[in-house]
Amino acid sequence: MICVLTGGTGGAKFVDGLRQVIPPEEITLIVNTGDDLLWWGLYVSPDIDSITYVLSGLLSRERGWGVKGDTFLCLQAMGQLGEPTWFHTGDRDLAVHLLRSRLLAEGKTLSEATSTICDKLGVKARILPMSDSRVETRVDTPSGELSFEEYFVQRWYQDPVHSVRFAGASDAEPAPGVIEAIVSADAVLVAPSNPITSIGPILAVPGVREALRRARGKVAAVSPIIGNAPVAGPAGILMAAHGLPCSIAGVAKAYEDFLDVLICDTKDARAAEALRANGLRVECAQTIMRSVEDKAALARTVLSFAVGGLLSEERVSGRPAARAASDQP
Amino acid sequence: MICVLTGGTGGAKFVDGLRQVIPPEEITLIVNTGDDLLWWGLYVSPDIDSITYVLSGLLSRERGWGVKGDTFLCLQAMGQLGEPTWFHTGDRDLAVHLLRSRLLAEGKTLSEATSTICDKLGVKARILPMSDSRVETRVDTPSGELSFEEYFVQRWYQDPVHSVRFAGASDAEPAPGVIEAIVSADAVLVAPSNPITSIGPILAVPGVREALRRARGKVAAVSPIIGNAPVAGPAGILMAAHGLPCSIAGVAKAYEDFLDVLICDTKDARAAEALRANGLRVECAQTIMRSVEDKAALARTVLSFAVGGLLSEERVSGRPAARAASDQP
Repeated sequence: MICVLTGGTGGAKFVDGLRQVIPPEEITLIVNTGDDLLWWGLYVSPDIDSITYVLSGLLSRERGWGVKGDTFLCLQAMGQLGEPTWFHTGDRDLAVHLLRSRLLAEGKTLSEATSTICDKLGVKARILPMSDSRVETRVDTPSGELSFEEYFVQRWYQDPVHSVRFAGASDAEPAPGVIEAIVSADAVLVAPSNPITSIGPILAVPGVREALRRARGKVAAVSPIIGNAPVAGPAGILMAAHGLPCSIAGVAKAYEDFLDVLICDTKDARAAEALRANGLRVECAQTIMRSVEDKAALARTVLSFAVGGLLSEERVSGRPAARAASDQP
Repeated sequence: MICVLTGGTGGAKFVDGLRQVIPPEEITLIVNTGDDLLWWGLYVSPDIDSITYVLSGLLSRERGWGVKGDTFLCLQAMGQLGEPTWFHTGDRDLAVHLLRSRLLAEGKTLSEATSTICDKLGVKARILPMSDSRVETRVDTPSGELSFEEYFVQRWYQDPVHSVRFAGASDAEPAPGVIEAIVSADAVLVAPSNPITSIGPILAVPGVREALRRARGKVAAVSPIIGNAPVAGPAGILMAAHGLPCSIAGVAKAYEDFLDVLICDTKDARAAEALRANGLRVECAQTIMRSVEDKAALARTVLSFAVGGLLSEERVSGRPAARAASDQP
């Protein structure tokens, strides 16, 4: 069993690779819910949605979020009603938000709602929200405190950032299965997600860091930073706000208490040397994921570093090439 | 000021005519909410929606419900999630349900939510739900008690009907403005709607019948029955279940305590004679509304019978022909 901590579009891409190289039944995903928002009165969980769509083959790979081939007529009509439209929910996408919101209104937990939706969409991997309690990523800026989606989507992460906090985290409990999945996995993979706002909220849930420290398998993280810049998004600004350099050293620092292997891009070979000198195992790989093949190759490489002999070479790399090459089912 | 009691597709057609011949600011509509339902967790008010769409020019005239040019991708996606799809909510249509549901969740009344939505859509007529309390039309059949939409939409009104009741009606209050609108109107028009399930719920709200009896203006109803059959829908079956003949005599009986003028189809000239012999004023007109012009003509005729000298001929009939002939704006 492989456990993955994930959030954001980098995480979704990584999981898109992973699903090509190991059977979905062997993957447990622990997903950031710090970005969750009430949108038009519906409970939207952007990172859970992206992972659900990746694993059901519904994700729009062009956009990196939402449902492929979706339309936006309800959004347009909401605009005509004077409602906000900065968060783009497609017409097909709305179905998941409607169903989840109804299940939550009926008293189901986010875990239960997620599990129901996954079943309906034929997702065989196990998707766990990091917590069933509400933990909200709040970004403190000169314009005031913003929710993550306000900062990221509505305002295009243009605001300077003083700090980030995870409101509700100290009272939150890990969702059922989260601690067990981390502790017992053959390997725990930290996706190339933003360390502050995608992985940070998961780590802020009491018990998660401790579970990572005592995990039976290796904990391997893929750096979302190459050189001194994130592959995408505001990770650099947010890391700086937390006193972390925007580099693989910053990523290593963010995860220092539990990290066994850091996988960085081949362009960071020199920086990797410096980190190795400090005693961390650092491996280099091609981490940019442009094609379906790139994603599968990175997943294969990361698994080989993290699991080593535990998974046979055949199981890690032997999935039919046709599956990797085909587009989403 | 003209007050209209309305529900169903017959009511929507009649209002579509009325809006062509009198300024919308002079119309108050009291709308059936007995069909309201929770659909996918959203509060849907089919008759308020239809009237709102008619008056904002958004109604699909082909379907007689919903938004013109709408798509049904969310519906399709809900089906894929295993959710019910028998009630057809379009993608644009969803926007109104989302906004109303959010407003209600925030503690607004149905009247307030309706008024907000009307403002946003530029509706200048006043649309009042019959009540802000929940009154549910329940249809008792051999298969058990059904909501109106289950009976009508899901099961195509194929079930035999024992009786109809309006759950919650005895505890309901008329929505703010309803009684005043009826009592003070220059005329009260009862649309050619189903007397049992479209007008019946309005009449079941305590105070409404009494207000109709003491209305300052004439109360004129358009018969939805021609000969011994309804123009559309299950009115005949439902009237029979309530011991009313399916004829203009049955319509007259349903409204007997407050009706001043019954407008029936020209085909019912003989039946009209019989009713007149009983002392009721009965007028004949072309009541089938196939075209935009039919609708305007019926509205003009009904107003002339109901208001007589109160509205000048010019105001009743003098709206520019171009408006009547043009399609929805």
